[in-house]
Amino acid sequence: LLAVSALAGFGAAQYAFDNFGRAPVECEAVNPLQRIKGNAPMSTRMEALVKKIQSDMTSALEELEGPSGGRFLHDSWTRKEGGFGTSCVLQDGRVFEKAGVSISIISSPAPKTMLAHMRARNREGLDPNGDYKMFVAGVSMVVHPHNPMAPTFHANYRYFELRKSDAKETDPPAAAWFGGGCDLTPCYLFEEDAVHFHKVIKDACDKHDKSYYPRFKEWCDNYFNNTHRGERRGVGGIFFDDLEDKSPEQLYAFVSDCGNSLVKQYIPIVRKRMNMPYTQAQKEWQQLRRGRYVEFNLVHDRGTKFGLATPGVRIESVFMSLPLTARWQYNHTPAPGSPEEKLLNVLKTPREWV
Amino acid sequence: LLAVSALAGFGAAQYAFDNFGRAPVECEAVNPLQRIKGNAPMSTRMEALVKKIQSDMTSALEELEGPSGGRFLHDSWTRKEGGFGTSCVLQDGRVFEKAGVSISIISSPAPKTMLAHMRARNREGLDPNGDYKMFVAGVSMVVHPHNPMAPTFHANYRYFELRKSDAKETDPPAAAWFGGGCDLTPCYLFEEDAVHFHKVIKDACDKHDKSYYPRFKEWCDNYFNNTHRGERRGVGGIFFDDLEDKSPEQLYAFVSDCGNSLVKQYIPIVRKRMNMPYTQAQKEWQQLRRGRYVEFNLVHDRGTKFGLATPGVRIESVFMSLPLTARWQYNHTPAPGSPEEKLLNVLKTPREWV
Repeated sequence: LLAVSALAGFGAAQYAFDNFGRAPVECEAVNPLQRIKGNAPMSTRMEALVKKIQSDMTSALEELEGPSGGRFLHDSWTRKEGGFGTSCVLQDGRVFEKAGVSISIISSPAPKTMLAHMRARNREGLDPNGDYKMFVAGVSMVVHPHNPMAPTFHANYRYFELRKSDAKETDPPAAAWFGGGCDLTPCYLFEEDAVHFHKVIKDACDKHDKSYYPRFKEWCDNYFNNTHRGERRGVGGIFFDDLEDKSPEQLYAFVSDCGNSLVKQYIPIVRKRMNMPYTQAQKEWQQLRRGRYVEFNLVHDRGTKFGLATPGVRIESVFMSLPLTARWQYNHTPAPGSPEEKLLNVLKTPREWV
Repeated sequence: LLAVSALAGFGAAQYAFDNFGRAPVECEAVNPLQRIKGNAPMSTRMEALVKKIQSDMTSALEELEGPSGGRFLHDSWTRKEGGFGTSCVLQDGRVFEKAGVSISIISSPAPKTMLAHMRARNREGLDPNGDYKMFVAGVSMVVHPHNPMAPTFHANYRYFELRKSDAKETDPPAAAWFGGGCDLTPCYLFEEDAVHFHKVIKDACDKHDKSYYPRFKEWCDNYFNNTHRGERRGVGGIFFDDLEDKSPEQLYAFVSDCGNSLVKQYIPIVRKRMNMPYTQAQKEWQQLRRGRYVEFNLVHDRGTKFGLATPGVRIESVFMSLPLTARWQYNHTPAPGSPEEKLLNVLKTPREWV
């Protein structure tokens, strides 16, 4: 989460609209730099996966914008310690107030502080004085539509690997895990949207492990929690981190299914809501909800905190998730029985959707 | 800072527009509950002072709003552990987008966690297992005008006192100190405004200690610092905390002069700027600067952090300082030589104004 939002390139722009195939072998045709084989290292395959997810989502969002709508700006960067990324940002479009879909591929020495942090997270096997290199590949996205009936959407999937600096390429990594998740943040609750969103990701989870969806759904409710408001950020989805309970192959297949579900999870919902009529008062309620989004991201989100504490971080990548506009109104309280109150009730007490 | 913004009543509403006199004896006439004598305890005198400051500032701001303009809503609360406050909020007025002026008078047992925190801040004399009661009186204000040429203004002054629970009323407190400050946050730099703002507070400081202004000016520049942006929040002012280097009488006189300078510091500036013409682009720049204000308050401000970490805190009081509206635009960079860039240069390298 942190690396992906905090660090983001080079040259990825030329691929962003290539139609990466899903199986590694299919990538050969579209990625001239890396002829990915079925037995390619996980790092290479994850890099191809996050590029494909970025390409799929930016294409789908631009399609909703239509021929005269907004287009993604591709902002590529490199990191001198090793790594690159591309932030794709669409701002003030026809349908979307702000949409950011970024990837980052980091390959560099692992900072000693990070090792200490990881040891504290039950990775005592790591040598605190050892020299490690790390690899991170991740994709992260946040989409804020104009129409208050259309929900905000966030997702991110990532892979993390640590190797001893003197390890051979064929050695297994000293540690490797996957993380990620997706969640939906409506301003007005359409139950069918929440059900659809959860159903698609539950199906993807169930193919791999029946325990994943219930565990990761609860983890999501607990993570995206504006504790200072007593409100969840939205109607949830899934969230997981440090996942290494199966073989890398099996976990790659799982994360790949999750990432490849994103378009199906979100696009039909926004298509259904993006042209609904709304009032000025509903727009203002949306702006207040945007304020809550800012609060979560600046006060609680671990990725943002890590990004802000990292010297030399690319701050625009860290803050790409923030909405274009937000509002704070003193002591705003929705009328009893109103749709606004109905949303708050669901945010206060998360529900089972499927 | 924390107590004031995090905790904020009763009955103060009826005083808010009373014209408290400055000298304690003058308060007798207008505060029927507390006939304040010259030898009244510091807690009583500070309570009267913060009420006076609140009254003066809300009156001055409403005068600028004019007869048909916005009016302050008075929101009073009590705290079950002991204490009360009044938040005065003016929202979406003629001149001001949002203005909040709040007082809080807390008198309750001191939480053990607070004692530990204080001992860590060089107050080893406090008995970690002792039972103490605390008293806090503070006033806090943030004013966001509509016009982008008119700067945002923030100030807060407070007094903190700890006593052993079994102490007699006539015993001196186990610890007592003052804190506070004021700072100005323009979207467009008018040097004469920054000079005026600093000059008024320097004069107030110099009357009491020639070392105060230079020390507290630097402290302010260091505190209101969006380190993640490499930008100060604004053109500064003063900031101090744990001030106990003189007698309580002398410090009360200093803080009283500071508090009584606020109207003179800020009101002439906003009067000069509030009707200036501006463009839509300038308004958007203001909205971006509002975003930076939100970033500081949510990411760095110690008072907000403490408030958010306090169970049962009144969150609307903590967040009263946030602007009504704010904006985040990906990778916005002012044109070279523009007034927007001129402001950024001053925020990157604080200047001596007087």
